[in-house]
Amino acid sequence: MEIREPIRKVAIVGRGNVAYHLCRAFGDTVEVVQINSRSELKIEDDVSMIVIAVADSAIQDVAAGLPSSGALVVHTSGSVGIDILREYHDRCGVLYPLQTFSKAKDLDYSKIPFFIEANYPEDLRNLMDFAAKISSLVTAADSGQRRQIHLSAVFACNFVNRMYDIAWKLMKDSNLPPEFLQPLIEETASKIRDLTPVEAQTGPARRGDTAVVDRHLGLLTSYPEYKEIYRIISEGIMNENIKDCSPGVTVQ
Amino acid sequence: MEIREPIRKVAIVGRGNVAYHLCRAFGDTVEVVQINSRSELKIEDDVSMIVIAVADSAIQDVAAGLPSSGALVVHTSGSVGIDILREYHDRCGVLYPLQTFSKAKDLDYSKIPFFIEANYPEDLRNLMDFAAKISSLVTAADSGQRRQIHLSAVFACNFVNRMYDIAWKLMKDSNLPPEFLQPLIEETASKIRDLTPVEAQTGPARRGDTAVVDRHLGLLTSYPEYKEIYRIISEGIMNENIKDCSPGVTVQ
Repeated sequence: MEIREPIRKVAIVGRGNVAYHLCRAFGDTVEVVQINSRSELKIEDDVSMIVIAVADSAIQDVAAGLPSSGALVVHTSGSVGIDILREYHDRCGVLYPLQTFSKAKDLDYSKIPFFIEANYPEDLRNLMDFAAKISSLVTAADSGQRRQIHLSAVFACNFVNRMYDIAWKLMKDSNLPPEFLQPLIEETASKIRDLTPVEAQTGPARRGDTAVVDRHLGLLTSYPEYKEIYRIISEGIMNENIKDCSPGVTVQ
Repeated sequence: MEIREPIRKVAIVGRGNVAYHLCRAFGDTVEVVQINSRSELKIEDDVSMIVIAVADSAIQDVAAGLPSSGALVVHTSGSVGIDILREYHDRCGVLYPLQTFSKAKDLDYSKIPFFIEANYPEDLRNLMDFAAKISSLVTAADSGQRRQIHLSAVFACNFVNRMYDIAWKLMKDSNLPPEFLQPLIEETASKIRDLTPVEAQTGPARRGDTAVVDRHLGLLTSYPEYKEIYRIISEGIMNENIKDCSPGVTVQ
């Protein structure tokens, strides 16, 4: 492979949250063309990179439908391997931003970790240089590592947000303003800057206070799903504390 | 009841995280005496409030052992009713700080919601005036409301931290630095200032992407506890999205 030119003009395929924010993130650095629908997939000649930012299940279709323009073709998915692109585009790669994107919420793009993969070393280098213009946290990662990062992110973000949602609903059902939880939520996230999650863990299960755990399970009788979540997570926290010195706790 | 004097000198019983931080929080406003062990329970005459900041299971013992000095006696627990104090101390109350306390982490006390209860209206007023000197978020709440707040807080804080912990372990097990998750964790908490948790929800379960959910369950084969948590939470998020129009999803 010859040395490639730096990435100067980017086409982004997609109209979801990731496509929306990548357009904004890239827009300060390079010229960006946003392509919303499959019928527009004709790509201009001077585009040096095409970013497929669509649902995981649609990546293959879009990749297959893209003309072979010679541009670098990348996707942005945590869970999809690079192989899905290789079949159609020799110059391919992945640009995975580890962040939660909602159109209604602005973001500081300089703090988004980007994980980069490419079929050719020259493209990897170019892609990493490009990402480094946007963010200070750019790392090469292969498809296997990226899958593990995405799985971890589901726990650290998506499931965390679901815990917020359950807490919100429990407050509302008791006619209490859920906004009271805001300082607690921010402090819980902020603690992780200074402490490991094991050090930061507090609460009845951490203290082994089975009386409170039992009372809480009782309060959740009319919420079978939340009760099951409460039971299994509390059990895990309790077993964490007594690891290596007991056969383990079962919360009934 | 006659009108009570404002709270001027406070004794705090306990040496855990809550006692440690309440000493610091109250110290700027009133004189504070910290009492660490039960043998020191002799209270000075001029103490106007005694704060029992011990494990829930020890509150009753401490309350029973306190001399009847005429001081207002309060506990700080989310889950324990006021009744446990009433038996021993006519002038009793609750001062529940909704926050996660670790000695190793400093806190901005002015942003801690305090929920207040007292046996007598005069004490309630005094206690609320006192708390208002520390925090701008002071609310009266009875024992039933406080129990619901505490239950919600277990989801919004303790279980959230456990999700961080699982994510940390999954990253480490793949030799990836868990600190990469930090910006995602902070953004996930910060979104809740602008959006409701339902609006903020993202991820494979939210998109109904069962292919990714199945792949993640496969990656968790050697973590049966995490797999079960993944399954039940994803099922909940999926059912949330299709509520009122389907009999529901079951993730196998």
